[in-house]
Amino acid sequence: MTDTIVFTRGVPPTEAFPTRQLAECFTAALEGDTAVVLQYGQQQGYLPLRQELAKEYRVSEAEVLVGNGSLHLQDLLAAHLIRPGAVVFTEQPSYDRAITTFRRRGARVVGIPLESDGISVQHLEAALKKDVPAFLYLVPDFQNPAGATLSRQKRQRVVELANQYGFWVLEDIPYRKLRFQGEEHPLLREFDASRIVTLSSFSKLLSPGLRVGFMLAPAELIKAVTKLEEDTVLSPVLPSQAAVAEFIRRGWLQPNIDKLKALYRPRWEAMGNAVRRHLPGAQAFIPDGGFFVSVILPEAARTENLMGRAKDQGLVLTPGGPFFADPHDGQPVPSARFLRLPFCAVTPEQIEEGVRRLASLL
Amino acid sequence: MTDTIVFTRGVPPTEAFPTRQLAECFTAALEGDTAVVLQYGQQQGYLPLRQELAKEYRVSEAEVLVGNGSLHLQDLLAAHLIRPGAVVFTEQPSYDRAITTFRRRGARVVGIPLESDGISVQHLEAALKKDVPAFLYLVPDFQNPAGATLSRQKRQRVVELANQYGFWVLEDIPYRKLRFQGEEHPLLREFDASRIVTLSSFSKLLSPGLRVGFMLAPAELIKAVTKLEEDTVLSPVLPSQAAVAEFIRRGWLQPNIDKLKALYRPRWEAMGNAVRRHLPGAQAFIPDGGFFVSVILPEAARTENLMGRAKDQGLVLTPGGPFFADPHDGQPVPSARFLRLPFCAVTPEQIEEGVRRLASLL
Repeated sequence: MTDTIVFTRGVPPTEAFPTRQLAECFTAALEGDTAVVLQYGQQQGYLPLRQELAKEYRVSEAEVLVGNGSLHLQDLLAAHLIRPGAVVFTEQPSYDRAITTFRRRGARVVGIPLESDGISVQHLEAALKKDVPAFLYLVPDFQNPAGATLSRQKRQRVVELANQYGFWVLEDIPYRKLRFQGEEHPLLREFDASRIVTLSSFSKLLSPGLRVGFMLAPAELIKAVTKLEEDTVLSPVLPSQAAVAEFIRRGWLQPNIDKLKALYRPRWEAMGNAVRRHLPGAQAFIPDGGFFVSVILPEAARTENLMGRAKDQGLVLTPGGPFFADPHDGQPVPSARFLRLPFCAVTPEQIEEGVRRLASLL
Repeated sequence: MTDTIVFTRGVPPTEAFPTRQLAECFTAALEGDTAVVLQYGQQQGYLPLRQELAKEYRVSEAEVLVGNGSLHLQDLLAAHLIRPGAVVFTEQPSYDRAITTFRRRGARVVGIPLESDGISVQHLEAALKKDVPAFLYLVPDFQNPAGATLSRQKRQRVVELANQYGFWVLEDIPYRKLRFQGEEHPLLREFDASRIVTLSSFSKLLSPGLRVGFMLAPAELIKAVTKLEEDTVLSPVLPSQAAVAEFIRRGWLQPNIDKLKALYRPRWEAMGNAVRRHLPGAQAFIPDGGFFVSVILPEAARTENLMGRAKDQGLVLTPGGPFFADPHDGQPVPSARFLRLPFCAVTPEQIEEGVRRLASLL
């Protein structure tokens, strides 16, 4: 068994795409609303999709912006909120592209340690004594890259701190609906939405190629980011937004999510079991959903050139470094020992064999 | 006849969209290339579309980037090329959103007077004695907003100056294929492509809602802008790019362009005739194609609150101011007397009546 096994990308497998249904929805959208879908306009996003999202999240249409993928909305939001000298806080580790975006837009990005129940509130409070960030970026459910989920108590406390110190919280929830076990916690915005921006997308629920992401926030903030989006791209790409609206209207979204969970659950179980079996000395985060298990290898593990040695064994891994921002307390971070292990696009057999290969290298 | 007549937006009318054909192309693209079209990836644009464009413009695939509309590519290119303190030259007047984009990305934007055969080379040479711009932005065919087309001789001279002084030229050609009379001039890149970036899109040839724009440039520049695009949006929206590729592959693009020209030609004739008939004292630019006629009203014309007075008469006009950058020589610009008159989305009857109303206000 020398096939290459890829533990790198947090992407859905091709068999997860509802291709035939999406094609029907594109046709219905183009023919049903030609004058809007094929024209310039709808800068805040395709109105029927904004209406669906407003209904689901119990906000007004003025509080919803739909754009060309949530990363672009994150970039525009960063451009709007980050002023020269600004600091942004993230979990440590955090989504590598978010860290890159915030730095490119001019912020110093400071990482607050992540625990198995989410960001360390103790460290967050200590960091707030030094700097009040423009915003705190969180992936509260099945975090990318670590897999951790923020506890209910910590959610409430983060919202209190945001109101007390006056910073925004970005809750990025692309994996939230892919829960394999346990109870859902409330969104941060459900405690108090006044300082919360919620980001999500249909990349993990339908298809990433559609690039349909959305943002929920107070109307004034949505207005400012929409203006910047219009200046940058004129209008969003409308056919894919209209196809998603049609998909939801037909009642096809929840059945599709159920289908995805049935596909991913055995992979999630296989990854949890393989990590427990083959990497007993590692500190493992086994999430209740999402795309990622992660491990911090034991201090004694051989990590020199681990990516290269793994590749020689037909195992592709992602280096941990890019997931780490500047540590808030100057302490060293375990980036060389951190491994993200995405399980959705690999079969249970590949998972078992891949983790076995990894263990043999340490 | 008190129906409102809108002379503001350079948009195609709904009847111009090949809706049924596009729907077929979306379905074929999704079902024919699912694993690519619905996935992350193709950061430089959907490969089969890049191949079609490479073939048409006789460049390599490495010299083609396809993104979410040409304005976004322009924004990313500006982010890459504009360094602190940079100057950008445009025609005067120029596309308002381009001026805004270059300013937002940090440039001082300097306008070089436009003549009926394109940018004034004399003024350009004078301006180059003072500043060498990061780039010169041109709409050489049926210019937005004025309608002027750059002569063959001037094209050659601009390319020589770009090479001599070392600045980039952005030739933005969204209207080029909509020529109603006369002979096409060569693209600037046909004289010497080493300092040329060509921008265009399918917004005027198929549909703006698709947001499929492209850039042709030396491979190194394409690589740098693609990196920035990936950091900003991760991947472009692929279904619409794949639908356009399919549309071209089926041989449907040129017949669609012919159909558009048949639709627009009577409107173009009506606008030219109406301007000559009703605004005899104005300096008119009657183009050989594209979307826009423009006029500079006589100095004696009453322009105080012209937009407001026109609106009261059921005529919606665009103010001229935003089309003007900083004058290179400090001379006043005729922005209050400049009017862009888009003719594609209005019928010949509306055109005749709208220009008649305009004339009555002066």
